[in-house]
Amino acid sequence: MALGTGYQNQDCSIARSLEVVGERWTLLIICSLFYGMRRYTDIRKRIGVSPAVLTQRLNRLVEEDVVARVPGIGAHDEYELTPKGEELWPVLSGLAQWGNEHYVKPEERQILTHHQCGTILDGTGLCARCKIVPAARDVVRQPRPVDIESDRASVRARGPRPHRLLEPLKP
Amino acid sequence: MALGTGYQNQDCSIARSLEVVGERWTLLIICSLFYGMRRYTDIRKRIGVSPAVLTQRLNRLVEEDVVARVPGIGAHDEYELTPKGEELWPVLSGLAQWGNEHYVKPEERQILTHHQCGTILDGTGLCARCKIVPAARDVVRQPRPVDIESDRASVRARGPRPHRLLEPLKP
Repeated sequence: MALGTGYQNQDCSIARSLEVVGERWTLLIICSLFYGMRRYTDIRKRIGVSPAVLTQRLNRLVEEDVVARVPGIGAHDEYELTPKGEELWPVLSGLAQWGNEHYVKPEERQILTHHQCGTILDGTGLCARCKIVPAARDVVRQPRPVDIESDRASVRARGPRPHRLLEPLKP
Repeated sequence: MALGTGYQNQDCSIARSLEVVGERWTLLIICSLFYGMRRYTDIRKRIGVSPAVLTQRLNRLVEEDVVARVPGIGAHDEYELTPKGEELWPVLSGLAQWGNEHYVKPEERQILTHHQCGTILDGTGLCARCKIVPAARDVVRQPRPVDIESDRASVRARGPRPHRLLEPLKP
């Protein structure tokens, strides 16, 4: 067991989840995969994690069937979320919406929409029009005002166009 | 800033949230507050965290207006979630449902229902009958089969009856 100071003895499903995804950096790695990154170096650059930590976290996620290692173009493997990993979307969506609401300037806020109808998802991830909480594959990340206007590096990194979650980003 | 190895420079609302709630133990402390615990010693016993860490984490959460310190009965302060803290429910709910699904035996699974109609919430926190994602105050934690049948300590700790989130647990 990777963590050894108590979570695993707890009578709580949240503790069980945190045993797997609660280590520092892990949720940011998973976030990068939802956002369409697939390569080790792209993830490392995006979140600024050390290679040793990234390798350890990815290995653990592969072990737990949250992430799959798949052959990429060229010599390097790529990483993608498994169906079990994709089921973590409500957690990531909740963190994104809460961070947006309380810690991000309006022009930097990430807007998520429902692919099928274009409605902006609310703070709980609900599409108020279709009355469902869309799965990650049906969620579109809209470019933020700041991406379009001024943040050139960010535009290059993920493109100024809307991006459907889990679709591989073009390098 | 409590964490100093990179999250805060990131162009990502998830990273901003994790700056505040991503430290080890923090989400379990918040979980205890959703489940109706209010006292330092009750939280400490439930999750098995050291006093020094619990104090540090609670102070940080109070600083960030996620938790409020309020006068309790007797000499001791109690802790409760602020409205901003309550908005973290989708994150906790997501972790609970994912842990239930993948790491918990059926008889130990936590079932959450919608207070207003009694419908079991799905993996995204949605009430399929009312077509909304209820706020934490409208969510009821049902006793698990294992609580009723055999887990005496657990029954004593939180009572074998359904418990509405955020309602103070009777000691």
